[in-house]
Formats: sequence, C-alpha cells, structure tokens
Amino acid sequence: MERVAVSLTALTDFPMVQPGDDLAALLVAGLEKDGIAPRDQDVLVLAQKIVSKAEGRYVRLCDVTPTPRAVRLAAETGKDARMTELILRESNKVVKHRPGVLVVEHRLGFVMANAGIDQSNIDHPDGDERALLLPVDPDATCVRLKAELDVAFDANIAVIINDSFGRPWRNGVTGVALGAAGLPALLDVVGTPDLFGRRMRVTQIAVGDELAAAASLIMGQTDAGKPVIHIRGVKWSAPTRPAADLLRPRQQDMFR
Amino acid sequence: MERVAVSLTALTDFPMVQPGDDLAALLVAGLEKDGIAPRDQDVLVLAQKIVSKAEGRYVRLCDVTPTPRAVRLAAETGKDARMTELILRESNKVVKHRPGVLVVEHRLGFVMANAGIDQSNIDHPDGDERALLLPVDPDATCVRLKAELDVAFDANIAVIINDSFGRPWRNGVTGVALGAAGLPALLDVVGTPDLFGRRMRVTQIAVGDELAAAASLIMGQTDAGKPVIHIRGVKWSAPTRPAADLLRPRQQDMFR
Repeated sequence: MERVAVSLTALTDFPMVQPGDDLAALLVAGLEKDGIAPRDQDVLVLAQKIVSKAEGRYVRLCDVTPTPRAVRLAAETGKDARMTELILRESNKVVKHRPGVLVVEHRLGFVMANAGIDQSNIDHPDGDERALLLPVDPDATCVRLKAELDVAFDANIAVIINDSFGRPWRNGVTGVALGAAGLPALLDVVGTPDLFGRRMRVTQIAVGDELAAAASLIMGQTDAGKPVIHIRGVKWSAPTRPAADLLRPRQQDMFR
Repeated sequence: MERVAVSLTALTDFPMVQPGDDLAALLVAGLEKDGIAPRDQDVLVLAQKIVSKAEGRYVRLCDVTPTPRAVRLAAETGKDARMTELILRESNKVVKHRPGVLVVEHRLGFVMANAGIDQSNIDHPDGDERALLLPVDPDATCVRLKAELDVAFDANIAVIINDSFGRPWRNGVTGVALGAAGLPALLDVVGTPDLFGRRMRVTQIAVGDELAAAASLIMGQTDAGKPVIHIRGVKWSAPTRPAADLLRPRQQDMFR
C-alpha cells in the first residue's frame, strides 16, 4: 500500500500586512524565501486577519454611530454599542444573544459570533480604537490569489482563508474555511459503496473545514505568528467547490 | 524564527480489527512495521470503528426488540425500528428529529446523529445484520492505550479516538475527538495577551477536535483504509485534558 502522508509547514517571519499590500506578492516572496515551491494540489491556508488587513477592512470606532437597536442589543449583551452596530451592519440577522454572547448570520451566510469582527491584535497607530471586519468576498479573494500563485509557480494550487469559530454543543473554537479555491471545500461521497456493498452513511465531508482546522493547529492565535500554512499531501479528484458550499441554507437548518 | 512543521502519516496495511483484539499490540506492531518510533508529544489518532470493533461493540439487529417509543420514532424519521431502538438505548435524550434525521445526546454527552451507531462497512459473516456502537468509554480507552504505548516506546505519547460528526449551520462532516489522553484536548488561552496588550477574544481552542479533523483528512471513509494516523510536530505545554472537556454542559448550551 502506498504511504499516505501530509505535511503542514508555517511560513517563517511573514510580515505584518498593511492595507493595500499585494498579498499574492507577499505570499510568493515568503514561499521563495522559505524554499517552498508549491506543486499541484498543494494548499495554502491564510489567516483571515491578513486578508482583512490587506483589504483595509478597518473601521475606526469613533466613526461609528450606533442605532437605537444597536444600543439596546449592546445593553442586553454587555458589548460595546459601536461594536454592536458594526456587527449588525455586517449581519443578515441575529440568531441568538444573551449576556456576553451575540451569534449572528453574517451577510455572507456564516453563522458565527460577533460577525467575525475582531478587536484584538489590531494596531492603532493614531490612538484610535479600530475594528477589523471579515474580507469582502473570501471565495473571490481565494480565486484571485490562486490565479496569481498558479502563474508564479506554474502549478495548480489551492487556497483557503480560515478563521476560528465556536460551535453549538462543544467547547472551544476550531478552524473553518471562510473562502476556498482550487479544491473541493465540500466533498460529495454520496453512493460510494462501502466494503460490503452497502451505501455509506456519511454523504459529504467538509474537507475545506478540516484543512482549515489542521492549519489552525500551528497558526497559533497571535497574528504576528504564523498566518500562512503550506499543506502538501492531501489528494482529491472531485471538482472544485467554494467555501460558500459549506453553508447550510437556512431553510434546511434545524438549529436556527 | 524556528521552522514550525507538522507531519501526518497513515499506518499502512493496518489489519481488520476483530472483537477481543489487543489494540495496543496491533498499534505497536503497525508502528514498528512502518519504521515509526513515537516520541514525546507525538499523537496517534485512531478511528472510532477500530476501537468499537476491538471492544466487540456489535449488536445483532435480530436480537433487538423495539419499544413502542422506538417504533413511533422510527416511523417519524423513516429509520429502521431496531436501529432506532439501539439509538434510544445509547442516548440520554432526543435533541431533534425529522424525516431522515435523528440527533440525540449520546449517553457520553456527545450531541450527534444516530448516537454514532454505524451500519456501514460492518461485515456480517453469519448473514445477520449487525450494528456497531461507540466505544464504552473513549477517554478511558485512550488512557489505557497511552499507558501501553508509553511503555513500548519509552515516550510520552498522546492518543485520540476520532469520529466524523455533522454540525448545525454548515454542510458536511468533520473529524472530532471522542476520546483523548496525554494532551490538552481543550486548550485554555484565557488572558493570553495579544500583541498590543489587550486580552484575546478567543478563550479556548478545541485542539483535540482540530487534531481529529486533520487526521480525518487522510483516514478516508472506508475502514479497511487508514484507521491510524501518526502526527508529529504539534507542541503544547498546557495540562492534559480529556475529550469529555470538549462537551458543553447542557445548561450552558443555547442550541438544544
């Protein structure tokens, strides 16, 4: 039997990303510096924060005026009213809230805490407090980055943008895919026969989320650390599907 | 900066596990055959099925008499009444059901479909249909296996038993930890300062589930395949916590 092995490698000394930075160029330079030449079906996993920063998704909290609805929700959750206003602006609806917790359906469909808006690890050179929103369109960004990386390395490379989400029923956050290109983020195994000719019980595997979680293991939680992970050894033959396919439509969801 | 890299390697040709097999002995033999000598903080991830099989957790469906409650629930979900009876016996409560779906709180606390009972990939040599229940006590099994592996390899090895769970809000299954020993399945990062002295937003990381998901990537979904994954390169200094710590207590859960 063929040996099956996967390696995950963190890029070293990846620079702090600033608004307007050319992320594809930074990735190419970082990979070349570390002597990594991506090959077909290699995967690059990028921390959400560096993508948001490159896209300049900062908002100065002093520029945010909360609506009465945000003020009310802030009081009910114990959150900052301006942050709450930003969360509402980024969301389709509030899924659940209570003191300390605000779970929303993000405008992109993710069900997540605080619309993924981050106030930690964000520098504020002018002394203003700033928040960082999720990337505008993570799947589209992955497609664009993949195209540039494919040319730079003459290979068919996959790209994932990941983030850490909490989940119902279980403690702790895990890495999930916000965006993906070049791989089946959702892998369909309907009808694959099992060893004894029965149909399989499991029908879809969230490969994008499993890759995102694997990368999270070594990204750590400080964004100056290791925001880019190179993964080699995962193989697939199924068609490419974006991370948007990982979102269960609201009407098929029993838990919101 | 030190290079951070993680490798995942599937054991080759792992034998089909039978009830009563000495799983620790099979693991030692499989590792030695493949030339892998586990070291401190190496992790072995075992597919739930091989643990359940070693524990002989088979039930012949012809021996199962459904209660009226199981017959009623089977009609409402479209499931086999004997399977439904087994699911109820393995569960504390039904969390949600509808045609095709039966989500329960397993007696061990996992919120999952069908109490994790498997009817696929299970041989039935005598022609009877058989189901395979989850291991009796996955955390305890991991502790026991770890003790034997530690002696065999003179190292401090971590062990995880994984399974694939569906989740609310997102399509597809991902690997999760049913049992763990020798590592912090839940990693507490409360109060770790961020780069600019603020406190971190994320307070707990489900390391056990992220390792389980990473291993799932190469386990595949056929149990004759690659049920044992060796992981090297993940580092931790936090105290050991079992997979049971990944379960959110019912009274703290907003989604059941």
